[in-house]
Amino acid sequence: MIKIALLGFGTVGRGTYEILTKKSENIKKVIGEEVFVSKILKRNLNFQSEIDKSIFTDNFKEIVEDEEIKLVVEMTGDLKGSYGYIKEALNAGKHVVTANKAVVSEYFEEFLELAEKNKVAFLYEAAVAGSIPIITPLKTQVLINDITRVRGILNGTSNFLLTNMQVRKSEYKTILKEAQELGYAEADPYDDVEGMDALRKLRILSTIAFKTKIRNEDILRRGISSIDLSDIAYLNKKNYKVKLIAEAIINEGKFKAVVEPVILSSDDELYGIDGSVNSVEIFGENYGSLVFVGEGAGSLPTGNAIVSDILDALSGHCYPILIENNLINDNENYAARYYVRIKNGLDLSADWIDFIESHGDHVIIETKEVKREFLLEQLKTLNIKEEDCFYARLN
Amino acid sequence: MIKIALLGFGTVGRGTYEILTKKSENIKKVIGEEVFVSKILKRNLNFQSEIDKSIFTDNFKEIVEDEEIKLVVEMTGDLKGSYGYIKEALNAGKHVVTANKAVVSEYFEEFLELAEKNKVAFLYEAAVAGSIPIITPLKTQVLINDITRVRGILNGTSNFLLTNMQVRKSEYKTILKEAQELGYAEADPYDDVEGMDALRKLRILSTIAFKTKIRNEDILRRGISSIDLSDIAYLNKKNYKVKLIAEAIINEGKFKAVVEPVILSSDDELYGIDGSVNSVEIFGENYGSLVFVGEGAGSLPTGNAIVSDILDALSGHCYPILIENNLINDNENYAARYYVRIKNGLDLSADWIDFIESHGDHVIIETKEVKREFLLEQLKTLNIKEEDCFYARLN
Repeated sequence: MIKIALLGFGTVGRGTYEILTKKSENIKKVIGEEVFVSKILKRNLNFQSEIDKSIFTDNFKEIVEDEEIKLVVEMTGDLKGSYGYIKEALNAGKHVVTANKAVVSEYFEEFLELAEKNKVAFLYEAAVAGSIPIITPLKTQVLINDITRVRGILNGTSNFLLTNMQVRKSEYKTILKEAQELGYAEADPYDDVEGMDALRKLRILSTIAFKTKIRNEDILRRGISSIDLSDIAYLNKKNYKVKLIAEAIINEGKFKAVVEPVILSSDDELYGIDGSVNSVEIFGENYGSLVFVGEGAGSLPTGNAIVSDILDALSGHCYPILIENNLINDNENYAARYYVRIKNGLDLSADWIDFIESHGDHVIIETKEVKREFLLEQLKTLNIKEEDCFYARLN
Repeated sequence: MIKIALLGFGTVGRGTYEILTKKSENIKKVIGEEVFVSKILKRNLNFQSEIDKSIFTDNFKEIVEDEEIKLVVEMTGDLKGSYGYIKEALNAGKHVVTANKAVVSEYFEEFLELAEKNKVAFLYEAAVAGSIPIITPLKTQVLINDITRVRGILNGTSNFLLTNMQVRKSEYKTILKEAQELGYAEADPYDDVEGMDALRKLRILSTIAFKTKIRNEDILRRGISSIDLSDIAYLNKKNYKVKLIAEAIINEGKFKAVVEPVILSSDDELYGIDGSVNSVEIFGENYGSLVFVGEGAGSLPTGNAIVSDILDALSGHCYPILIENNLINDNENYAARYYVRIKNGLDLSADWIDFIESHGDHVIIETKEVKREFLLEQLKTLNIKEEDCFYARLN
């Protein structure tokens, strides 16, 4: 019998426990031994439970000092606490599986080194794109294939908001409020709608894909919260869609990485990814691209990814990550055509504008190919506040 | 140093060799030893080669009796010969990796048993959907998740033909001839356009997904070769697309499995899969669906899948397939709404017709939900030859 512990028993913790229990026979067949949750860390022990309450504890020491526990699943969602839990568990020689993208993106290389040093597995399939098996195949792909580009719709909340705005032609604030009431968006939506969550996932994906350390602060970021109905009107008229896309590309020893709204035409692979669904696309020298689509969040989808990591950790089915490159950040040269919606009446006789159309109190611009930095400088020069304009890359 | 052998050195063999050579450093890092192609089986040894010709042989005995060779990659494409090669290699205690869907679909359970008996790996990622990593994740998924449905566009040639007919509004025969000239279709296109190739892949996928033996002869099949421009006109008018879809579903201990043309509306996950691209979708109890998209054929895409299998076989990263169910074939109850185009002037006062429209020499019918068997009987009763009608499931 192999004992494991869960840290956290919220939505994801319950999903993980349910799958582990329901599939215990299959897991036993594959691992050769029963896998048994012997402890669950929970802050508040005063609650109703269908599970034997004696396995719950509010003391992490009881878990990390229990030598019989071979694997710890970190699902607390707490950045500060989880860093300590993961570090201590790895140092105690336990495999660690986590769904926590914030802590992985912040301390990725440190955890990888600790796992290697202690000869245990550190796995985080559930931290990127929920149910989609992407980390595991990507780790194989990078060994046999130079990956040149990674992109994806990595945040379900922002995709849900954008899809609903566009389909229902409703204002951002109206849809956000509804999503919050339905539980599709957090009370504080900042990380989701301003691109932080997608950025963390891109940091993990691009580090693996390009075999180089790409930190959170190496990635440019712009969210979706300034979009309004005039943008939606433009999109619907052209049969375009807008998505919050996280993308990293590599070229001649340099990388560019950005999370921002991107306007897609109907022939784009990601055009059909609507609602809260996630998608990841990887481009390699051995093929054009591989696309993966699936649910990005939820109790069982995320639990499913966690349990697949538990299987891999206990079976030893894990390829190492090779962080052997030292690529230069080339974000200052990030260039593209952009859609920009700003207020009317500004002096816009600039030569970077390809197309401009006036609509009452605002104008819609399609730029020529410009450096992203240059565009932002122009907007600054025009004294336009971030929240008073919406810009999106034209793909 | 680990020695391996390649059987066959056509398009896929060359792609495999190229990746193995180019990525030898990474492979060594992961396996711990160099992986070296020491023999290549080739029928005709009278050829120009950039590779040292001494490693080529036309005698399989030299490979199977070489105890230093730990793994054999079967890529001959020859059904009869390859069966013997795979069986002998497994019995000689060598891992086997193959791209040959015909032989895998014909002898799947026999090979799995032989591999288990001889404690070696038998892997075939490249046999289904080329570059897409689908077999490996599916083997993990079935352990932790009841898969209820698998479907996909598993044949690139037929998808290429259908896409081009529809976009260019050209006749089937015209597009087929072009595709043959460009090398996108075989001189004898039967297996591709009549659904045999897709059927073999569905047999493999559904056997793994449902943990039950689903043989080639358990799957209903209808190809695309009777499609004509009147069908294309209907599709384009409705903004539909037609795809050759392979699909298997499970319900209450019974399965249904069919390969046939399916008419998709734009909200279908597979609507955007155009050209020679492949796609696989799996539906599980832990999530709605996972979709995988990528190139289904070609030298490097297929080679890429083969090399990932070589890594897994040599690292021991392989989950077993559990064929533990004994599901009943329920194809006789397969029911759906169908599109049917037949010649005009028949007595069609039948109550299974939902909609009928006359167009000169033919009529277009949309049926009510009917059993597939019943529909085929009706067409037989009307004395309609298979090649004189086109029918496709309405999704």
